[in-house]
Amino acid sequence: MLRSTLTAVAMALALIGGSAQAQTVSDVLGAAPTEAWRDLDLGNTLVMTLANNETVVIELAAAFAPRTVENIRTLAQGRFWDGLSINRVQDNYVVQWGDPNAENAAEARSLGRAQTQVSPQEYWRARRDLPFTRLRDGDVYAREVGFSGGFPAARNGREAWLAHCYGMVGVGRDTAPDSGSGAELYVVIGHAPRHLDRNITLVGRVVAGLPALTALPRGGAALGFYERAEERTGIRSVRLASEISGGSVAGQYQVLRDDTATFQAYVEARRNRREPWFFQPAGRIDVCNAMPPVRVRPAG
Amino acid sequence: MLRSTLTAVAMALALIGGSAQAQTVSDVLGAAPTEAWRDLDLGNTLVMTLANNETVVIELAAAFAPRTVENIRTLAQGRFWDGLSINRVQDNYVVQWGDPNAENAAEARSLGRAQTQVSPQEYWRARRDLPFTRLRDGDVYAREVGFSGGFPAARNGREAWLAHCYGMVGVGRDTAPDSGSGAELYVVIGHAPRHLDRNITLVGRVVAGLPALTALPRGGAALGFYERAEERTGIRSVRLASEISGGSVAGQYQVLRDDTATFQAYVEARRNRREPWFFQPAGRIDVCNAMPPVRVRPAG
Repeated sequence: MLRSTLTAVAMALALIGGSAQAQTVSDVLGAAPTEAWRDLDLGNTLVMTLANNETVVIELAAAFAPRTVENIRTLAQGRFWDGLSINRVQDNYVVQWGDPNAENAAEARSLGRAQTQVSPQEYWRARRDLPFTRLRDGDVYAREVGFSGGFPAARNGREAWLAHCYGMVGVGRDTAPDSGSGAELYVVIGHAPRHLDRNITLVGRVVAGLPALTALPRGGAALGFYERAEERTGIRSVRLASEISGGSVAGQYQVLRDDTATFQAYVEARRNRREPWFFQPAGRIDVCNAMPPVRVRPAG
Repeated sequence: MLRSTLTAVAMALALIGGSAQAQTVSDVLGAAPTEAWRDLDLGNTLVMTLANNETVVIELAAAFAPRTVENIRTLAQGRFWDGLSINRVQDNYVVQWGDPNAENAAEARSLGRAQTQVSPQEYWRARRDLPFTRLRDGDVYAREVGFSGGFPAARNGREAWLAHCYGMVGVGRDTAPDSGSGAELYVVIGHAPRHLDRNITLVGRVVAGLPALTALPRGGAALGFYERAEERTGIRSVRLASEISGGSVAGQYQVLRDDTATFQAYVEARRNRREPWFFQPAGRIDVCNAMPPVRVRPAG
């Protein structure tokens, strides 16, 4: 009787993650079932090809910023970014791309059928009806943090919003809160600037090719803008992955679903690192250190 | 009487920072008295010159890792790093430098008069007698966080340790906890990997020239090591700033003292950004977003 009770307790502990606590990150990902991974949503994925042939894949978060994402889709369909450039690289902050002449009405490129500003802003949304995998570890900036649809997010009693983690993509804007269109985009390349949360619209995450942006030379002018036009890296094209004829490189990537037991085990394995190298497991994890992993879909 | 009491309360609030709350970061730094800034401790500062002539200045935290810092000083005096290279650049993690042949006893460079390992480790120290400017904003990983001598730090009831913020420098080691010597160093180049805290010895902070490391091409092999020797950036020299004849570039830099009212006002200005661009001040700040600023000493 005692034995069977203990067995039941042990099994219950295993089911709630007790067994996962001894696993390394590599153990967890190696054992992940196929269905724990999802393909990218190609209709909401941008593929940016730089002049140096490097490729950056950005998954858009339509659940958080539907109107801005729609405007970005329109800009990509209108080939707005083709031939433009990466204009700003500020160390420990952001890489930003778009039209270097945007401020000069005479030379600025037309946004075509896209809106010149998305109003009202989409800095946050109602938390109701939004799937949310909550992290139990707490957060300096928000009441709750976790993941939704693969994106790092935060919420309070009423609203939910995306979090400025490394690799997250947002919409540059002027001082007026509604001035962003999506034509000017940035990606976080340093310690999470969470003070930007709810001050600017985040629209997605770089899921592949991030080093093509993070390793760019930093700009020497204020805010990391390049001082000379020839320092800018050119953008050959930005396309929706679903509209690339012959298929896109984006089709090969998969993201670990955050609503799975595998993701819980993954977070636990990162919260308490079990690799022999670690001497003192942290026991806690910051939301930006728990981003859902991305892989290339295995063959077969 | 009521009026004078209210006036006294208002004045007290202003003195404890009420007036600072309306200041921007630029206001605070513009108004900082000369004595709020300190020069670098040149006897505990490394100047690394790369083969491409870029310079990186690293201030060492002797209060946290005295034996390791002493070993690093010995290595620099022995010109250990001259002609070695940057061997590893892992995106959103670390840049690491040292002897690429360290694992190969036949080819490894001698550490000269320096110790081959510093034992016991210096992952933490007693909190007693350590100056500490505590941040009131909380932390995911530690009971308390703040700054000590210009370095980001954490503590619990008994111990204090340096925090793995962007730009912090640590000592690479093998699996054995005592295997680090300081010959192999790394700098954090992504979101703070705070799970490394207390698992490895941090020894300082890059106070100038960080983009010379953060913008390097990422390595293609496991852990971001370069696949081919020719991808490595060479190190021309690493010297103690105090031993550079004719003075060092390091002599021009100053760090805002963390034990000053100016630093408190700086943190408050970053906690609640007052620039017109910000729509919703965060009200909180992460320790790694509150690093003491560095400036070039003004002329005259």
